Amino acid sequence: MRREKGILIVLSGPSGVGKGTVRKELFSEPGTNYEYSISMTTRLPREGEVDGIDYFFKKKEDFEELIEQGRLLEYAAYVGNYYGTPIDYVNETLNSGRDVFLEIEVQGAALVREKAPNALFIFLAPPSLSELEQRLIGRGTETEDVINSRIQAARQELEMMHLYDYVVENDEVAKACGKINAIVAAEHCRRERVEKRYLAMLEGEV
Amino acid sequence: MRREKGILIVLSGPSGVGKGTVRKELFSEPGTNYEYSISMTTRLPREGEVDGIDYFFKKKEDFEELIEQGRLLEYAAYVGNYYGTPIDYVNETLNSGRDVFLEIEVQGAALVREKAPNALFIFLAPPSLSELEQRLIGRGTETEDVINSRIQAARQELEMMHLYDYVVENDEVAKACGKINAIVAAEHCRRERVEKRYLAMLEGEV
Repeated sequence: MRREKGILIVLSGPSGVGKGTVRKELFSEPGTNYEYSISMTTRLPREGEVDGIDYFFKKKEDFEELIEQGRLLEYAAYVGNYYGTPIDYVNETLNSGRDVFLEIEVQGAALVREKAPNALFIFLAPPSLSELEQRLIGRGTETEDVINSRIQAARQELEMMHLYDYVVENDEVAKACGKINAIVAAEHCRRERVEKRYLAMLEGEV
Repeated sequence: MRREKGILIVLSGPSGVGKGTVRKELFSEPGTNYEYSISMTTRLPREGEVDGIDYFFKKKEDFEELIEQGRLLEYAAYVGNYYGTPIDYVNETLNSGRDVFLEIEVQGAALVREKAPNALFIFLAPPSLSELEQRLIGRGTETEDVINSRIQAARQELEMMHLYDYVVENDEVAKACGKINAIVAAEHCRRERVEKRYLAMLEGEV
């Protein structure tokens, strides 16, 4: 029997909502069987971030060469830096039947929506706007100007929610992870995905 | 804030697939917060079945009176008996914000699909047709003629799968329950359900 193709899971949401924290928690669980697609970026590593684990950190000119070659599933310029997803790894993994998990910025997710309409789009949302502002300030790694521009961006990003299939509130990381896992499990049961197998069974056993 | 309406969850599938077993297991779990909508039937109770718990057992003439009064969300005649769902309880529970769980025959589910298109339709499927036949025989409560007519009905019922949103294979009861719970949890995160709350938040916090 032909193996069912994997699901491309796209987790996105406004800057500061905790996408990275949720993704790390998801992948620290022993039962997780998604493949994580590591993003590329031209921004500098934050403290503790490791090249090839948190991101592939690239020079701007190298990133732009990959864009020209069409080898990114999506990319976005955000607060002066590029972020993107290498396309080959994603396709190979989906074809082998495994799910691929992307954690990307909202701009990039809109591009994936165009290129991969069958992907599963999950929007990670803050419990409130004021809490989101506190998180952006609390990170303590950016200047006030950067924080203000991020808050404006976050408002615009919240308005992109309508492009998504699901919305998960990040009130508690463990709860958010549970919901994301449930959404993926449910998606594997969608009738359109499994129907063919049953129709074949009916025909084979007349 | 206005309370979000509950979800009407419809579990159905071919006769003998184990709908009742799965439903009982779901409702034996302490965390389950669906309200079970008890069906009405004119068939005689099987050993161990209790009126008002497994079904409301009704006389044929009483059932037909409820049909005439339009007080059933759905009903079906199946192997010479009526099965149906009282409508008032379902609507009251949904309006109070709780989810309602219906476990019904395939004929009835098609009627609910017409009357309640926003309900969540889950098809419980056998691992194979031959296993379904074994289950129908193994139950040991019916004559050979009844078993054969059920097998024919089951084949037709499998072909109704295209009316459903999700398909859950009942290979193991615990696994099937886990998938059903995941599907309901995911449904509560569907963007269409929660979006309004976030748009209100954005407007309230300008």
